[in-house]
Amino acid sequence: MKLRDFGIQDGISEVIATTISPTGKPNAAPIGIISDKKICARIYPDTHTYSNIQATKKLVANVVSDPLVFVLSALGDLDEKELYIVDEIPVLRCADAWVSFECEKDEQDDTLIYLHPIKGKVLRKRIWTIRRSTNAIIEATIHATRYLATKDEKYLKWIAHYEEIVKKCGSMREKEAMKKLKGFLRGRYKKL
Amino acid sequence: MKLRDFGIQDGISEVIATTISPTGKPNAAPIGIISDKKICARIYPDTHTYSNIQATKKLVANVVSDPLVFVLSALGDLDEKELYIVDEIPVLRCADAWVSFECEKDEQDDTLIYLHPIKGKVLRKRIWTIRRSTNAIIEATIHATRYLATKDEKYLKWIAHYEEIVKKCGSMREKEAMKKLKGFLRGRYKKL
Repeated sequence: MKLRDFGIQDGISEVIATTISPTGKPNAAPIGIISDKKICARIYPDTHTYSNIQATKKLVANVVSDPLVFVLSALGDLDEKELYIVDEIPVLRCADAWVSFECEKDEQDDTLIYLHPIKGKVLRKRIWTIRRSTNAIIEATIHATRYLATKDEKYLKWIAHYEEIVKKCGSMREKEAMKKLKGFLRGRYKKL
Repeated sequence: MKLRDFGIQDGISEVIATTISPTGKPNAAPIGIISDKKICARIYPDTHTYSNIQATKKLVANVVSDPLVFVLSALGDLDEKELYIVDEIPVLRCADAWVSFECEKDEQDDTLIYLHPIKGKVLRKRIWTIRRSTNAIIEATIHATRYLATKDEKYLKWIAHYEEIVKKCGSMREKEAMKKLKGFLRGRYKKL
C-alpha cells in the first residue's frame, strides 16, 4: 500500500485526523503526516486526538482540500453530521481520500506517533491548482492555534499578513473561512 | 465554458502563462488569473508575456501543481522541450489542465488585461492535498521576483522564512525547487 496513491507524499502533508473516544465521541483535528523513512505525526498530549489514540490506537488521515474544514476542525468543533463510521473509526464526508492507521507511540518521545497504514480509499480527484489564498488560511490557522497556546502576539501579525493574501486572492468560501477564523480568535479573547 | 471545470476558481489562481512571439519564440511565466465579475490578469509591460500578447492577443493559462515549474518559469527559462503547440500557441507538457484566452487590454490601465476564454482541456486530475511546502515555494518565488525588481532586502527575509517551511515540510522535489530558487538568486547577485 503506497500512501502516495492516497495523496500523501514525502515530506509533510496537512490532513484532518479523525479519531473516536472510548465512549464513542468522534473528534476531528488537523495534523501533519510526516512521510520520511517512517510514517509518523507529532501529536500533543493535551489534545482529544492524543487521548483517543491512547485508548483506541486508531486514527484516520482525511485528505481535504477545503480550508474552511481546517479552520473548523482546528479552532471549533466540526458538526458530527460531517462524519461517518468505517470499521469503527470516523471518516470525514468531505474527504477526497482517507487512510486509516494503527498508532504506535515512540518509546522515548511522547509526542511522536508512528503510523502503520491499515487501509485507504480514494473518493474524488480534482484539478490541483496552486492558490495562495488556500494556503494562507492554513498558515493563519496554524498561527491561530499557536497564538491560543502561547498568547505570543507575533502570531497575530502573521495572521494579519495571511489575511491580506486572502482578501486579495481568496474565493468567497476562503473569505468565509478567514472570517470564521477571526471569529474564533475574537471569541477566545473574551475568555482570556 | 466554465473556468471552474479547468481548475480556475473565483479569486486568484496561480498558473503558468504560455505565449509566443511574432517570430515564433515561446515563453512561459507565472501569472495570477483573477476570476471575479470579469476574468483578467495583471501583466507588467517589461515582460515577454506582455509583448507577446501585444503582438498575438493570445495566452494559454496552464494549471500546474509542480512548484519547480513555477520557479523555473519565474526566474529562469523553461526548456522549449517542455512545450508543445496547440492552435499556434504553446502549452506546457506538465499542465494538468489548460485554457486558451483572447487578450484585451483595459483602455485606461495598461497592466490590466481582460481574458476571454477560447477553449480548454483537462488532462489529469489528482488528489488535492494541502502542503505548506508547495505553497512556501510559490510565496518564495513571488518574493524572489519582487526582490530582483526592487532590491528591497525585506524580500530576502520572507524567502528565508519560507525556506524554513520547505526544509521542515518539503518533499525531495520541493527541496530541489527551493535550491534552484536560491541558485537563481545567487546567480543574479553577481550581476548587481
